[in-house]
Amino acid sequence: MQVKKITKVLIANRGEIALRIIRSCKELDIKSVSIFSTIDARGVWVRKADESVLLEGDPIRVYLDYKNIVEIAKKVGADAIHPGYGFLSENPDFAQHCIDNGIIFIGPKPEHIALFGDKMASKVAMKAVGVPVIEGTDTPITDINEAIKIAKEIGFPVIIKAAFGGGGKGMRIVKKEEEFVAMFEAATKEAERFFGRGDAFIEKYLSNPRHIEVQIVADKYGNVIHLGERDCSIQRKHQKVVEIAPSPRLNDTVRKELLRTSKKAMIKLGYESVGTVEYLVDEEDNFYFIEMNTRVQVEHTITEAISGVDIIYRMIRIAEGNKLPFMQEDIKFRGYAIEFRINAEDPKNGFIPSSGRITTYLSPGGPGVRMDSIGFKDYVVPTNYDSMIGKMIVSGLDWDSVVRKSRRALDEFIVAGIPTNIPLHREIVRDEDFKEGIFNTTYLDKKLPTFTMEAISHLEEDEEKYAKVAAIAAAIKMNQK
Amino acid sequence: MQVKKITKVLIANRGEIALRIIRSCKELDIKSVSIFSTIDARGVWVRKADESVLLEGDPIRVYLDYKNIVEIAKKVGADAIHPGYGFLSENPDFAQHCIDNGIIFIGPKPEHIALFGDKMASKVAMKAVGVPVIEGTDTPITDINEAIKIAKEIGFPVIIKAAFGGGGKGMRIVKKEEEFVAMFEAATKEAERFFGRGDAFIEKYLSNPRHIEVQIVADKYGNVIHLGERDCSIQRKHQKVVEIAPSPRLNDTVRKELLRTSKKAMIKLGYESVGTVEYLVDEEDNFYFIEMNTRVQVEHTITEAISGVDIIYRMIRIAEGNKLPFMQEDIKFRGYAIEFRINAEDPKNGFIPSSGRITTYLSPGGPGVRMDSIGFKDYVVPTNYDSMIGKMIVSGLDWDSVVRKSRRALDEFIVAGIPTNIPLHREIVRDEDFKEGIFNTTYLDKKLPTFTMEAISHLEEDEEKYAKVAAIAAAIKMNQK
Repeated sequence: MQVKKITKVLIANRGEIALRIIRSCKELDIKSVSIFSTIDARGVWVRKADESVLLEGDPIRVYLDYKNIVEIAKKVGADAIHPGYGFLSENPDFAQHCIDNGIIFIGPKPEHIALFGDKMASKVAMKAVGVPVIEGTDTPITDINEAIKIAKEIGFPVIIKAAFGGGGKGMRIVKKEEEFVAMFEAATKEAERFFGRGDAFIEKYLSNPRHIEVQIVADKYGNVIHLGERDCSIQRKHQKVVEIAPSPRLNDTVRKELLRTSKKAMIKLGYESVGTVEYLVDEEDNFYFIEMNTRVQVEHTITEAISGVDIIYRMIRIAEGNKLPFMQEDIKFRGYAIEFRINAEDPKNGFIPSSGRITTYLSPGGPGVRMDSIGFKDYVVPTNYDSMIGKMIVSGLDWDSVVRKSRRALDEFIVAGIPTNIPLHREIVRDEDFKEGIFNTTYLDKKLPTFTMEAISHLEEDEEKYAKVAAIAAAIKMNQK
Repeated sequence: MQVKKITKVLIANRGEIALRIIRSCKELDIKSVSIFSTIDARGVWVRKADESVLLEGDPIRVYLDYKNIVEIAKKVGADAIHPGYGFLSENPDFAQHCIDNGIIFIGPKPEHIALFGDKMASKVAMKAVGVPVIEGTDTPITDINEAIKIAKEIGFPVIIKAAFGGGGKGMRIVKKEEEFVAMFEAATKEAERFFGRGDAFIEKYLSNPRHIEVQIVADKYGNVIHLGERDCSIQRKHQKVVEIAPSPRLNDTVRKELLRTSKKAMIKLGYESVGTVEYLVDEEDNFYFIEMNTRVQVEHTITEAISGVDIIYRMIRIAEGNKLPFMQEDIKFRGYAIEFRINAEDPKNGFIPSSGRITTYLSPGGPGVRMDSIGFKDYVVPTNYDSMIGKMIVSGLDWDSVVRKSRRALDEFIVAGIPTNIPLHREIVRDEDFKEGIFNTTYLDKKLPTFTMEAISHLEEDEEKYAKVAAIAAAIKMNQK
């Protein structure tokens, strides 16, 4: 075992995940360095890091310019870089560039990032190590005639997906043959616009599947464990909104098989660091691999809640070359956990992103509530980035009490000044199907039209009143001077 | 089993415990009613309750006037009252008055409150049910000659304690016979001033004991369980400052015996609701009962963290007449938890209580951190009440990681505008003895002179700078109008 203690980590990211990484660094006595765009100067993670480096230039591109970021890491004496999620986290060239410059990349090996970045290749690789995959093409397709032929062979409904992309872009579901040509063209055009390559693949479309994923943690010495599964079926436009661990209605035999299969595959592939194997589970409980995320995920928090394992802390330890200090049988799960993504967006207005000053920020708290948030009173939410301003994680011994706790915590969570999706979450935790643990990836499509998103609490109004009174009092004081 | 569903709870308290009770009520679909003094109008718990009733008059006395409080409960249609801790929580007359007025008192039976309110009687009662007690008087003493005789019999050092009091008032440790007369007079005079009765008792004084207590939960049907122990040795002037569950260095055999003895005693006494049996444990691991708290305690939170059981939720369920839904063997403990009491007091200036406007409030968060706090930006901390403005509870799988997490969370916890004891906590989690789990009730007396309480973080300064810049910008804007 070769261990190299990390002393300083540069965080190639922003927002709540930057703050999350800073927290683990501090616990490990590792110095943390934030990089920040001109727009992010008042971000709480910038203040909480030990050092911060301003990146002048385009406020998005500065977080993607990996050569510059590695240069800064060298300048400030960082011996490791944590990429977070999004931005450069799944760019194998970035990982390789770190290694080439003598900097530890806190994540998997570049070859695994590259493999799983290619959806088609990863399906082939996973099939080879015994993981069920959905029937479909195993090379990217650009030719429309070939595409039609394959779609017919598989049988409708099929789904068209960008071969080099994600986040729902370049994706279309085709229910009937006659719709196929138009849909295929739209998908490939969109993929080309977003990812520079129009290549698509086609696979069997499952109706009403659940999205279930397995958290993997692996050291450099072949020790691989899973930390259970997460149910991320509650999505809007292929973006996760609410995540749950464990999956409340997954058959126990299927659960065991899913976890066992994922772990075995990762052992065979020699995977290291943390990662997530994503599946769709159909109505007959068959599961199919869809993709692997070679990075920490937004929703790692709920796995931390049920397992007690600190995933980012462990990820850094692994990157240093430490062996896992526990084996599979040491992991004891407790209860349930739900993560609510708190987004600056307007649920009453088509979920358009919102921005501006937060005028009131009252955080929930109490038993079973963990907050990972960059929101605070007077923080100005920028327009330039992902709309997520925080995550609320609620945990407890049983499903019913966790749903009740979530409802209570959401009701007392007051953010004023900008719209957020908190009203959406309040609807979800009051929904009878959700309360019964009944949901799949079509859940929000079906439920959204029935949700009113009305303020259910007198608190917001009161707070605005309070704020006004306070403002008047302040103005009077100022005049008296 | 006779169950009467509670529909509305009046909370006869204020501050963080009022907020804590509101949270459980909301989870149980029970309406909550806050009462508040004129000074507490902006308290966050007042806003978060479903209804709030202003109590005009002396801002302390209004929380003690139990006849008026019961009247208000009847007026607003509350069918139950939760007393919290402090104020009326251990007043048997209040409990009885609730019952006489057809209102459920969420707590133990009045006779148990009365029994354990009398320290002498409770020692006798606990001895009778097999609990070891410290050698000492078993009736209150006022006569100095009798007192000297008893002290000599027991042997020095002895401790003199007010028979009807608490919180360290009327308490003296006497190491030598020649000091006894003066100390006894001082103690009884102080007791008379604070509690109206000078009666004292005398017992053997243990040097370097640990304060260890057992959390009891009992329903109305004789089902009693314990939720493990807490180590509350870290005290300043007999006030708990930091609490830990489980006790890091308690011998496992002794732990089991302590828990078994406490539970057995509570079964024999027919105790119901929640309560805490407090012990001193000497250097040879002998344990001695000191008192029983017949209410929820400030530090119940750390037991919630390690057991997963929501104590106040359960307390309300018990008051409704529900049976415990779990047995002793169902309770699985996980890891460690530490509670830090966040007080508005100045650790660099003799811990004098502080008051005034909070100008910055940045809450810690992330994995393993629970916040029970009434602090927020622009909240004005009053002078009239207990100085505690919140509690930070940190939990994790092992002692070392919980201490690291605590240090990290304390470092990122920024409260500006008023001094708090956060610098004290930062010193404690950096102390080598604490990190090794070595502490007893003399810990703070020994350590305080070595703690500098210096700001260890650049964050406070930065935030003040930020605040100034924001204030100037606001002033300029106002002038431009």
